[in-house]
Amino acid sequence: MNADGLQAYLVTEFPQAFGSGRPHRVVRVDAAGVSLTLEASEEHLRPGDTVSGPSMMGLADIAAYAAILAAIGPVPLAVTTNFSINFLRKPPPGLLVADARLMKLGKRLAVCEVGLRPPNEGGDPFAVTGAEELCAHAVTTYSIPA
Amino acid sequence: MNADGLQAYLVTEFPQAFGSGRPHRVVRVDAAGVSLTLEASEEHLRPGDTVSGPSMMGLADIAAYAAILAAIGPVPLAVTTNFSINFLRKPPPGLLVADARLMKLGKRLAVCEVGLRPPNEGGDPFAVTGAEELCAHAVTTYSIPA
Amino acid sequence: MNADGLQAYLVTEFPQAFGSGRPHRVVRVDAAGVSLTLEASEEHLRPGDTVSGPSMMGLADIAAYAAILAAIGPVPLAVTTNFSINFLRKPPPGLLVADARLMKLGKRLAVCEVGLRPPNEGGDPFAVTGAEELCAHAVTTYSIPA
Amino acid sequence: MNADGLQAYLVTEFPQAFGSGRPHRVVRVDAAGVSLTLEASEEHLRPGDTVSGPSMMGLADIAAYAAILAAIGPVPLAVTTNFSINFLRKPPPGLLVADARLMKLGKRLAVCEVGLRPPNEGGDPFAVTGAEELCAHAVTTYSIPA
Repeated sequence: MNADGLQAYLVTEFPQAFGSGRPHRVVRVDAAGVSLTLEASEEHLRPGDTVSGPSMMGLADIAAYAAILAAIGPVPLAVTTNFSINFLRKPPPGLLVADARLMKLGKRLAVCEVGLRPPNEGGDPFAVTGAEELCAHAVTTYSIPA
Repeated sequence: MNADGLQAYLVTEFPQAFGSGRPHRVVRVDAAGVSLTLEASEEHLRPGDTVSGPSMMGLADIAAYAAILAAIGPVPLAVTTNFSINFLRKPPPGLLVADARLMKLGKRLAVCEVGLRPPNEGGDPFAVTGAEELCAHAVTTYSIPA
Repeated sequence: MNADGLQAYLVTEFPQAFGSGRPHRVVRVDAAGVSLTLEASEEHLRPGDTVSGPSMMGLADIAAYAAILAAIGPVPLAVTTNFSINFLRKPPPGLLVADARLMKLGKRLAVCEVGLRPPNEGGDPFAVTGAEELCAHAVTTYSIPA
Repeated sequence: MNADGLQAYLVTEFPQAFGSGRPHRVVRVDAAGVSLTLEASEEHLRPGDTVSGPSMMGLADIAAYAAILAAIGPVPLAVTTNFSINFLRKPPPGLLVADARLMKLGKRLAVCEVGLRPPNEGGDPFAVTGAEELCAHAVTTYSIPA
């Protein structure tokens, strides 16, 4: 599946996150993983007027879900078993990007690393350069149904 | 602050989570910690028609925030630095309860344990009996501003 | 298996941790879980002359392993998939106790909570009172071989 | 400090991990971080004759400690507050390498990512190529004393 194909699949399968009016979008699918964006609005903020922890955790978890489906095909009932995140820097206003990379894909478990960061200034805003200053870093384990 | 007082403070300070029409409510504040509820609706579900990981993570993180404010008073700019959660059992339909207990409250960091579970059948639905079968278990660290 | 039986099994099966001269011992096995002790010596210290993080992480992980074996019988090839720990308070000198409690025991995964603390003053040093001030709190997931 | 200098400092400051006869060694210090090795022997194994979880957790934690000292100089009383690890693949026999990279270095907290993997076949065994198949992946937070 390419980015448009995965987006279309998720709009149908997971409308709460990707459907009409919802703020998540798939922007990259390749051999290295996937990238998603969150267009944060008032509902995603917290005291201090910054994107809330739950909004960032949701973006990271959903990005991992998308990365797993991109790798193994439409298995929508894969579920998170463990999720861990460190918040490193306050995200700047504007779009937030989540880059998800599978560290391990087994028959029963998939482990995914997700970095949250602003878009790149100049060039491809969603390319993963390796030089990103992350706002947050998460690792999550998904259970793949038999 | 008692439950009503903390709820009123959070409605003003964190309307995105507690304001009119939002699904979180403080139901218990005592020396042992706080309990919150999430009234899940369609927006909180995921494929498989169960409460989504992000919705549960948000509830746990917000419960920890409430527990810290109940303990140290109105310091709304306390921020999550680390959050870790294990999903143990699929939550049943209906209200979800989060019981938050401070494991450590220092000058710079607070560490909070949060259990997510359905309300108790019979008696006080929100009392913490110690015999809860948890849907999820989280531990989160908050940084307390100087 | 009772405490002596589990200890004897582990001396044979996991001599690196429980064999002659090694510092771990099973002190409690009951329906609520297991407790182990670590008798820390010079090799377990770090700069600042306190028990090192690795020594405490090892104790917590080994206690979870013991709790799982106590629950499901001799399945020595259960392996850790995920381990997370928060260090809360500097441990006092002397024996360190690890109380391990299974939060979930499934066919494929077991999730165990472990609290590290000094022995109780007075009464049964290893009883779990619920009022322990923890030095550290860990949650670990073990994969159970098919 | 270069690798030899950091190694010499740690031999004195943290003999339990780096002293004579101990199995850890600093092999790389540069702007990107540090790499350490663990020469596993019988004492580091577990049932199944593979390097134990505690041995790998110790290596990861010690690598993070070394990375922080390499970055901020001799502050030996930096302590771990949080440690989280996912075990991905059984490590092959032989030397195990830990590559530690600081994700954030603040005044109060440092967050470090550590990948554990076998040495590279061919070329520089300890160079970080980005193509490593990790045995384990850890993220740890250290508190830096005022």
